[in-house]
Amino acid sequence: MTIRTSALSLALALPLLALAPAIANANPSAAAVSVAPYAPITVAEVEAAQLAWGDALVAISTEYERNGRDAAKTLAGKVLDAAYAYDMGPVLFKPTLAAAPNTFRTTRDGALAYFVGGDSRFPADSGFALKGWRAYKIENAGIVITGNSAISMGNVHLTDAKGNVTVVDKTWGYVRGADGKLRIVLHHSSLPYAGK
Amino acid sequence: MTIRTSALSLALALPLLALAPAIANANPSAAAVSVAPYAPITVAEVEAAQLAWGDALVAISTEYERNGRDAAKTLAGKVLDAAYAYDMGPVLFKPTLAAAPNTFRTTRDGALAYFVGGDSRFPADSGFALKGWRAYKIENAGIVITGNSAISMGNVHLTDAKGNVTVVDKTWGYVRGADGKLRIVLHHSSLPYAGK
Amino acid sequence: MTIRTSALSLALALPLLALAPAIANANPSAAAVSVAPYAPITVAEVEAAQLAWGDALVAISTEYERNGRDAAKTLAGKVLDAAYAYDMGPVLFKPTLAAAPNTFRTTRDGALAYFVGGDSRFPADSGFALKGWRAYKIENAGIVITGNSAISMGNVHLTDAKGNVTVVDKTWGYVRGADGKLRIVLHHSSLPYAGK
Amino acid sequence: MTIRTSALSLALALPLLALAPAIANANPSAAAVSVAPYAPITVAEVEAAQLAWGDALVAISTEYERNGRDAAKTLAGKVLDAAYAYDMGPVLFKPTLAAAPNTFRTTRDGALAYFVGGDSRFPADSGFALKGWRAYKIENAGIVITGNSAISMGNVHLTDAKGNVTVVDKTWGYVRGADGKLRIVLHHSSLPYAGK
Repeated sequence: MTIRTSALSLALALPLLALAPAIANANPSAAAVSVAPYAPITVAEVEAAQLAWGDALVAISTEYERNGRDAAKTLAGKVLDAAYAYDMGPVLFKPTLAAAPNTFRTTRDGALAYFVGGDSRFPADSGFALKGWRAYKIENAGIVITGNSAISMGNVHLTDAKGNVTVVDKTWGYVRGADGKLRIVLHHSSLPYAGK
Repeated sequence: MTIRTSALSLALALPLLALAPAIANANPSAAAVSVAPYAPITVAEVEAAQLAWGDALVAISTEYERNGRDAAKTLAGKVLDAAYAYDMGPVLFKPTLAAAPNTFRTTRDGALAYFVGGDSRFPADSGFALKGWRAYKIENAGIVITGNSAISMGNVHLTDAKGNVTVVDKTWGYVRGADGKLRIVLHHSSLPYAGK
Repeated sequence: MTIRTSALSLALALPLLALAPAIANANPSAAAVSVAPYAPITVAEVEAAQLAWGDALVAISTEYERNGRDAAKTLAGKVLDAAYAYDMGPVLFKPTLAAAPNTFRTTRDGALAYFVGGDSRFPADSGFALKGWRAYKIENAGIVITGNSAISMGNVHLTDAKGNVTVVDKTWGYVRGADGKLRIVLHHSSLPYAGK
Repeated sequence: MTIRTSALSLALALPLLALAPAIANANPSAAAVSVAPYAPITVAEVEAAQLAWGDALVAISTEYERNGRDAAKTLAGKVLDAAYAYDMGPVLFKPTLAAAPNTFRTTRDGALAYFVGGDSRFPADSGFALKGWRAYKIENAGIVITGNSAISMGNVHLTDAKGNVTVVDKTWGYVRGADGKLRIVLHHSSLPYAGK
C-alpha cells in the first residue's frame, strides 16, 4: 500500500519541485537513458509514478490559483507529455467526471480538456485539475507487473482547499517511454458505487 | 469496434455452446497448447475474449433461471477459472456494483461472490450474473497490445429479460494462461458519470 | 559476472541434490506457483538457471558413469523438461558440436540426441553430456532482461574427469514456464574462433 | 524460411537504396512513430530486419570499394545506430571471427571495430564488413516472438566478390527502438562446427 499524506503547507511548497525531474526528462533526446525501454517495470517505479501523478495534480491546481488558467494549461500540457503515453499511441483514459459522448479520451487534446477545460469540443469539461486540490493519498489494492508493462488498482483520496475529500476508484496502466520513464497508457477513474 | 448484438432467442440458445470450448481447455495439462504463453496477444484474441465474457454472463443468468443458484455457482466457478487469471496471482477486479469495504476483488472468492452472491464475507453481493442478462454489446474505445499482455477500454451494454439496458464503462487487462488462452488479470467496471 | 567453480569432490556429491528442486517442480499442475508466468525475469533468476544448467550437465555425466546410458538418458529427459521450453513451442538450440544437416535442434528429440546420443536420426551425436564433465564455471559478458523474457551471453568453462577444460561461447534465452520457473527457449553454443 | 538471393549486379545497385529508409528514421525525434515501442513484434518485421542487416553488410563492402575506409566507417556507424540497440543499453554481440580477449562486443565501439577495423583497442579486427561481400541468403531454423522482443536462429550464407560462400550459424535477438523500429540487442554468430 502506497500512502502519501501531505500536510497542506507542504503540498503547496513541494509539488513543483517534485514535478521538476519528470519534466526535465520529458525530452528523450536530452535525457541520459539510465533504464532501457525494454527493461521490466518495478513496483517502486509504479509507486513513484503514482506519486508523480498526485504531485502534478496538486501542482496544476496551485499554478492555476497563482498564475491563472493559461499558466495552468501550459503546466498541464507538460505533465501530460511527461506522465502519459500519448506520444506513443492512443491512451485508454476514462476520467472520473467524463460522460458520453466524451467518456473516453484517447487523444492528448481530450485529456488536456479534461484537466483544464476551455475546449469547445469537450463542452462539459470544467477543468478537473483546477478544483483546488491540495493533497492526495494513494491506497493500492494491488500492483501487477506484466513484464515491461504494469497495472495498478486502488483508491485515490483527493483533498481540496476546503478540506473536502473525494475518493475515486482508480486503475492505471504503465509502459516505458523512450527515455526509460514510466508513461500512463491506461487510466480508468470512477466514483465509488453509491448503492441503489 | 467490436459489437455483438444477440437477438434474445439466440442469446438463450447459444451461450452454453459458445462457452464450451473455453471451459474444455481450462485444464492446462489436458489441452494441446497451440499458442505459446509468451506469444504476443492479438486484437482478434482480445475481441474473442470479450465475446466469451459476454456469452458467459448470459450463460450464468440462463443457468440460474433453469437450474437454480447452485448450478449457476458451479458454472460461474468454471467461467472464472477459464476467463480470469486468479490461478496465476492476484487479479485487479473492481466490479460495477461493488463498494467499500469490498470494492476490490483480488481473490477468486471475492469474484465468485460478486457474480452469484451468497457469501457472508461479501454481504452486499446479490449476484450480478443472476440479474436476468439476455444479450450484450461491446463497443471498444481502444485496444492496446503491450507485448504478451493487452488492455481494452470501452462500453458494454447489457440487456436483461425485461429489455432494460445497462451501460457500463469497462476496462479489461489480459495475459496468457499456461494453456495459451487469454485470462483477465484486470477488470475495472463502473457506471457512467451521471453529472452533478 | 557469475562464477561457480566446483571442487571435483563437491561436484560429484552435490549436483543431484541441486537438481532435485527443479525436477520436482517440472509438473506445473503439482507445483505451487510462487511467481506468475507474466512476471518480469530477474538477473538472479537467470544466474540461478545458468547454475542449474551446469549442475544438470555434471549430474548427467555422473549418472552415466554410475548407472549407465539408460539412466543418463532418463535423467537428461527430466533435465530437458525442467530446463528447456520444448513443451511451450520450438526451442532455438544450436549445440556446440552439432553440424549440418542437424545443426539446429528445435525439437526435444533433437536436444536429447545431442546430450546422450543413441538416436539414428542424429548419427553424429555421441552424447555431449556423457563426456565426463565434473565442474563448470560461467562468466557472463552480459545479461539483458526484456520484460518477461531474458538473454545472456558469455563463456562457459567445462572441466572433465581428466582435468581438461573446454571453453565455449554461450548465449541463452529464457522465458517463464507455467510453473513460473525459467525455461531455455534459446541456446547458441559455439567453440571460440580459432583464427585463420 | 527467409531467403533472399541477390544477383551480383542487383546487389551492387540496390543496397544503398534499401538501407536509406532505415537510416532516415534513425533519429527518433525526427521520425513519425507508426508503431508503438511496446507493440508486439511480428515475424514479418524480424524477416525485414534480417534483410536490412544483409543489405547493410553488402552496402558497407560496396562503399569501402568505391569510397574507401573512412566512407565505409561512416556508413557502418549509421548502420549500427539504425540496426543495433547500443543507444538503449548493452548489446550482447559475439561476432563470427572475434576471439578472447575481445570475444564479446557489448559496446558500439567494439562493434564498429569488428565491422571496419582500424581500432587499436581491437587489434585483431581487420574489418569484417570490408571483405567484399556481394550477396547473402538467410535461412531461418526458427523465429520465436516473445511479446515485444523476438529471437531468430538459422544460417546466413555470405557471398564475396570472388564467388566464395561463407556460411555462419546465426542468432539474433530484437527489441523495438523509440522510433518503433526493430533493433538488434543480441547477435551470436559462429562458424559451423567442423568436426573433430
